[in-house]
Amino acid sequence: MSLLDALRVPAGPVDLLAYDTDATPGFEGDKSDGERALADLGEHLMDLQTRLFAGRETDTPHRVLMVLQGMDTSGKGGVLKHTVGLVDPVGVKITSFKAPTEEELAHDFLWRIAKAVPGPGYLGVFDRSHYEDVLIGRVRALAPAEEIERRYGAINGFEADLVAGGTVVLKCMLHISPAEQRRRLQARLDDSTKYWKYNPGDLDERALWADYRSAYEIALERTTTDAAPWHVVPSDRKWYRNLAVAQLLVETLEELDLHWPPPAFDLEAERARLAADGIS
Amino acid sequence: MSLLDALRVPAGPVDLLAYDTDATPGFEGDKSDGERALADLGEHLMDLQTRLFAGRETDTPHRVLMVLQGMDTSGKGGVLKHTVGLVDPVGVKITSFKAPTEEELAHDFLWRIAKAVPGPGYLGVFDRSHYEDVLIGRVRALAPAEEIERRYGAINGFEADLVAGGTVVLKCMLHISPAEQRRRLQARLDDSTKYWKYNPGDLDERALWADYRSAYEIALERTTTDAAPWHVVPSDRKWYRNLAVAQLLVETLEELDLHWPPPAFDLEAERARLAADGIS
Repeated sequence: MSLLDALRVPAGPVDLLAYDTDATPGFEGDKSDGERALADLGEHLMDLQTRLFAGRETDTPHRVLMVLQGMDTSGKGGVLKHTVGLVDPVGVKITSFKAPTEEELAHDFLWRIAKAVPGPGYLGVFDRSHYEDVLIGRVRALAPAEEIERRYGAINGFEADLVAGGTVVLKCMLHISPAEQRRRLQARLDDSTKYWKYNPGDLDERALWADYRSAYEIALERTTTDAAPWHVVPSDRKWYRNLAVAQLLVETLEELDLHWPPPAFDLEAERARLAADGIS
Repeated sequence: MSLLDALRVPAGPVDLLAYDTDATPGFEGDKSDGERALADLGEHLMDLQTRLFAGRETDTPHRVLMVLQGMDTSGKGGVLKHTVGLVDPVGVKITSFKAPTEEELAHDFLWRIAKAVPGPGYLGVFDRSHYEDVLIGRVRALAPAEEIERRYGAINGFEADLVAGGTVVLKCMLHISPAEQRRRLQARLDDSTKYWKYNPGDLDERALWADYRSAYEIALERTTTDAAPWHVVPSDRKWYRNLAVAQLLVETLEELDLHWPPPAFDLEAERARLAADGIS
């Protein structure tokens, strides 16, 4: 079974407590095995992504959008560094969504999202996303309840349009336990090279852990669609998280059956021109 | 001597024919040694760039802008993949400048450039740049001669302003021989995984090699300043080019004497809050 299938959220109600955050589905081995496996996967991932990028000026380019969600410290930054960092940065567009600006708040919640979707041939990565608008948006009641309700359908419509337009959407929830979050927050308070990652607001959100779990469960249930399904990545083990996301990306790109594009010029004519060129 | 000093273009007239494109200044060793040296440098480069990024919300953030110029096939893409690819992609902003659009042409040539300069804490990389406007701009007479003349001073003023605002500007010319360009173009015509990199227009520009060399010499002479000097990177050997640019980046970041930022919060208070937090 593919990891895409193994980690895919099935239709119906979601109970996140039933997902083991410490598991390593699809992979037998320890941390050092996992790190080696990730390095081994790197070259293949780079090859696939280069094919994606090479096709950007063809008539049938693909686009890939990976959405990363998860509680603070769940490892969105780690995935960017260790997994997304394996591919050619020229073909990657990372967008880190922060609290919306005043201008963004004056628009529909999808306004800033739509501007950031990947162009032809690109791997776009959302570090947080439109899902914040039904997660912190719901937990903190940042919009009226009817508006929050409306958003699930709006998200499904938006993503269906993306998919219909040739974008593959890979949605990953990096799932950690509250105990693991405690260890990671503690590490940020104990290590002077990590202070910059600590935000006192993270503890305010942590205090609402059960509310966030519930908001995630509702979001996963209502927005895991055939067009754009969710995947829950057990993320208490950083090495597994990085490896699993790499494997999900590999499988996603493999499904596109990417070929190197044929020459967009007359091959023989260009060979003749170069051979006749007297420059040296 | 630092590589920054060794490769820096001295004041005065520039004769590019006097620069050996096949040399490996500052490095004794062959390709496999060089590739190992680059991998070894990777961790240090990542550490330095993470410090740069960590400081982005402090009162004294730095910004780094690396400008990559060079003839077609000189390896701008290779440097992005192999050298820039060594750092955390979340802190990097690559801008690949193509032929200007109609809207861009309706503005001053620096309009699109100014929009792409790196924000606080970022490593910005220009894959081609405002220098195209005095290179192909000059060779192809894409603007009146007086306008081309005006641009050298405008560039120096623009870069001096950037530097005064806290941006370090690292300018690299990837210098190849016409014979090496021939080999690389031939490879793109002989290898179906490289067709997508080939553009028939490259041969049109190659036919003007001597004109481009002259345009580069003028640009280097007139825009190598104390604030933003040029470096000529011998680039016939790809491994050396990748290693040299990595070393230039490392030295540039080391000169910033980057420290991990102090906590932007009350460390003891946060430790106490986390300890008292009953979430599990």
